[in-house]
Formats: sequence, C-alpha cells, structure tokens
Amino acid sequence: MTKTEWADDPCPIARSLGVLGERWSMLIVRDAMLGSTRFSEFRTSLGIAPDILSARLTALVAAGVFETVEYREPGARRRRRYELTTAGRELSTILASLAQWARTHLPPAEDNQNRFVDTMSQQQVLPCLRRSDGRLVDPADAVLVTPTAVN
Amino acid sequence: MTKTEWADDPCPIARSLGVLGERWSMLIVRDAMLGSTRFSEFRTSLGIAPDILSARLTALVAAGVFETVEYREPGARRRRRYELTTAGRELSTILASLAQWARTHLPPAEDNQNRFVDTMSQQQVLPCLRRSDGRLVDPADAVLVTPTAVN
Repeated sequence: MTKTEWADDPCPIARSLGVLGERWSMLIVRDAMLGSTRFSEFRTSLGIAPDILSARLTALVAAGVFETVEYREPGARRRRRYELTTAGRELSTILASLAQWARTHLPPAEDNQNRFVDTMSQQQVLPCLRRSDGRLVDPADAVLVTPTAVN
Repeated sequence: MTKTEWADDPCPIARSLGVLGERWSMLIVRDAMLGSTRFSEFRTSLGIAPDILSARLTALVAAGVFETVEYREPGARRRRRYELTTAGRELSTILASLAQWARTHLPPAEDNQNRFVDTMSQQQVLPCLRRSDGRLVDPADAVLVTPTAVN
C-alpha cells in the first residue's frame, strides 16, 4: 500500500501511520523534540544512512511535520534547518504515550529518564485518556467503537 | 537494527517502536480493539498476506500484547484466538493519540468516525497531556528533555 493510499484512508490511525509508520520517522521527530534541527545532528544521533534520513525528512516536510529554514554560517554554504511545525510539536502526545507504555511494559536494563515537560512551568506532563466531564479513564478500560455501535 | 537491539534501548519511545514500529502491527491492534480475535478476521479486515500476518501476530504475542486462547467449534479442528492482554489494551492511549493527530492534521475526504469510549460509561475518551497537579497542557507546548536539562 502506498503513502497516497493511506492519505485517503477513512481510519485516522491508518492516516497517521501513513506519515509516521516508518520507525525512523518517529525517532527523527523524537530527536527534533530534544532539540536537533540539522541534517548532521539527526545523522549523528540516529546513526542512520544519509539517503534514508533524507527521504524521511522530505516525507515529514511534505506531511507538514517539519518546515525548512535556510541559514548560512560565515564562510559556509547555505544549509537548511528542520524545525517542527505546530502539527509536528503536537506529536508530543503520541510520543509521550509510546514512552509511557514502554516504561510500564518493556522495562529495560537502563532507561534514559527523558520526560515531556510543559514549556511554561517545566513540570512533567504525562499522557492520559479523559472523558469530556474531565474524568480520567484507565487505558485498559477504553475500547474502540464504530459509530453504529455507539448509537 | 534488530528487534532484540531495540528491546534494550534506553529510550522508551524506541522500545515501544521495537514492538509496534511495523505499520501492520499497530493496525492489527486497532482491529483487535474493534473486536477481531481470529486470524481469518484480521486477514479479511486488513487484506494482509497470511505469512506477514502470522509473523506480526507471533511477534505481538512474544511482546505480551496478545495472548492466545485455543478453541474448537463443533466438527472443526482446534484453532487459536488472539486476545489483547492488559498491556495490549493499554495501547489505547497510543492509538487514540494517533487518531486525534490525523483528525486534526490529515483530514480526509471521509473519516470513519470511530472513537474510543470508556467501557463503563460508554462516554467518549480523548487523549491529553496532563501535569501532576491535574492541569492540561497543549500538546504543542510540551517538549522532551533529558534529566540533566531538568535539574
């Protein structure tokens, strides 16, 4: 199935995976949230082949996750920085959910202790599921239903 | 990088992607949350090649997302049902976050309107980021930080 087919999938989970379904894509976004903006920074931190990195970045720009900003340092040629758009920064909920699940269910020998914080207060934030009346719901007690099953 | 290497990654996002990083894996879990339990049901709903489906289900069982339950219908041979474990059901936060992001940023011609509900109240639940004092934080205002950056 090609990316274009996913883009028109009526399932929003499938559409998101059309953009983020490649492992490297999600890890590139993770590193961007940790502050990386340059091709060389992503390449170093991820240890990824340049052609794959280039393809993934291009796809993420096309999907509106990154925007490119040209810059030039003294004596160097013009380069592009990759900056997360608002849509890209809003991927925080997905990444925080992935992190929380692994910390609960895939405990490793060593965990990096990275955390998501509110930029205003620097307080840690955690993902949760919430009803419209504000009540929190245990993730294990949430099920996916189709519209006909609801009403 | 092999699955085994991801299992020991200090980054919890990378560990989760070691289990869920294949597109089909996340869609298999989605269909399980909609009620599918049998190999033939996943195969029909996803239109996936049997050998790929078999490999993905085996990996998800090994990762503790599904458990298998043997059953036999009258006159038929023994078969296995795939049931989500508690860990598997807790993937709801990740899937709900993927769905929410696509509904905001990848609006399609047609959306299936599926939603996550609390099994007790049948009320819809939405993913959010929350500070320990209960305050909700806009996902675009959350950043990932390393322990040294926090203190």
